Amino acid sequence: MRARDLAEPYPTVALDDQALDAARLLAVHRLPGVLVVDGPGTPRALLPASQLVRLLVPGYIMEDPTLAAVIDEAHADRLCEALTGLRVRDCLPTDAPAPSVADADDTAVEIATLMARTRSPLVAVVERAPNGPRNPAPGRLLGVITASHLLHRLLGNP
Amino acid sequence: MRARDLAEPYPTVALDDQALDAARLLAVHRLPGVLVVDGPGTPRALLPASQLVRLLVPGYIMEDPTLAAVIDEAHADRLCEALTGLRVRDCLPTDAPAPSVADADDTAVEIATLMARTRSPLVAVVERAPNGPRNPAPGRLLGVITASHLLHRLLGNP
Repeated sequence: MRARDLAEPYPTVALDDQALDAARLLAVHRLPGVLVVDGPGTPRALLPASQLVRLLVPGYIMEDPTLAAVIDEAHADRLCEALTGLRVRDCLPTDAPAPSVADADDTAVEIATLMARTRSPLVAVVERAPNGPRNPAPGRLLGVITASHLLHRLLGNP
Repeated sequence: MRARDLAEPYPTVALDDQALDAARLLAVHRLPGVLVVDGPGTPRALLPASQLVRLLVPGYIMEDPTLAAVIDEAHADRLCEALTGLRVRDCLPTDAPAPSVADADDTAVEIATLMARTRSPLVAVVERAPNGPRNPAPGRLLGVITASHLLHRLLGNP
C-alpha cells in the first residue's frame, strides 16, 4: 500500500481563484477544507471552511460577539457579500501552515507517521519529477489522503 | 435561520464506546472527526480522525520517523490492532478543547461568530431544558452545523 494507491481526487483551488468560488466548492462538496495549489503540483495551503466563515463576520461583531444577536435576517442573507472580490490568497491566514506532502512511493506507515506528527487531517500526494538540472518541474499532484480514508484502508477495506 | 433549522444529524460516539468502533464510523462516513457525547445532550469533545491515526503509530516511530520506511506491509496491516481494547475516552488528547455548542435559538450570525472565534469546523446544537430547580436535565443534542453547511446556507441554498 503506497501513497500513489491511497491517493484520491480532492477539490483544489488556485491562489488567484475567487474566494466565493472556493466557498461554493466547499459548500457543494461539504468539505471541511479545500486544498490550495500553486501550479499543477505544488500544494500551498489548506483553506478551512471555518476560515471563510470567519471572513463573513463583520469586525465589530468579532470584537463584541453580543452584537451578533441583534443582526437581522436580511443582513444575514448578505453576509457572503464580504467575500466578493477577494481572491483565495487574500483569505489564507498569515500563520497558515504548509500542507503535509507525501511522496507517491511513501508507505502507509510513513503517511500515518506524517499525519500523526503534523496532526494534519489530510496529506497531499505528489509525484516528484526526476531530479536534474534539465528538469526543474515541481512535480504533479496525484491526490489527497484524508485521515478517515487512511483509517478505512488500514482497517482492511479495499 | 436559527440553529435548530441549520442543525443536521451527525455521527456521535459515547466516552465508553470502543475506539475501534469510532474508527470504523469515521472510516465509513469519511468524516474528519466524530462528536463525543456524554449522555443524550452533552457534547464533550471532537475526536479527530488524525488523532486515531496517531494512536496507530508505534512510539518508537514517532520518536524516529525514519524507521517508518522499514516497516513491512504485513506489519502495516496490523496497525489498527493498537486500538483494540481502548475506549473513546482513552483516545482523547488531554488538551482536547470542549466542542463549540450553540443554543437551538441562536441565529446564523451568532453561529458564524462562534465558529469564527473558536476556529471550529463544527458547532453542536443543543436544546437546553428549561431552567429551574426541578429540571436539572442537561438538554438534548439536535445535531451539528459544519462550517461548510453554514456556508452552503449563507450562500442562499435551501
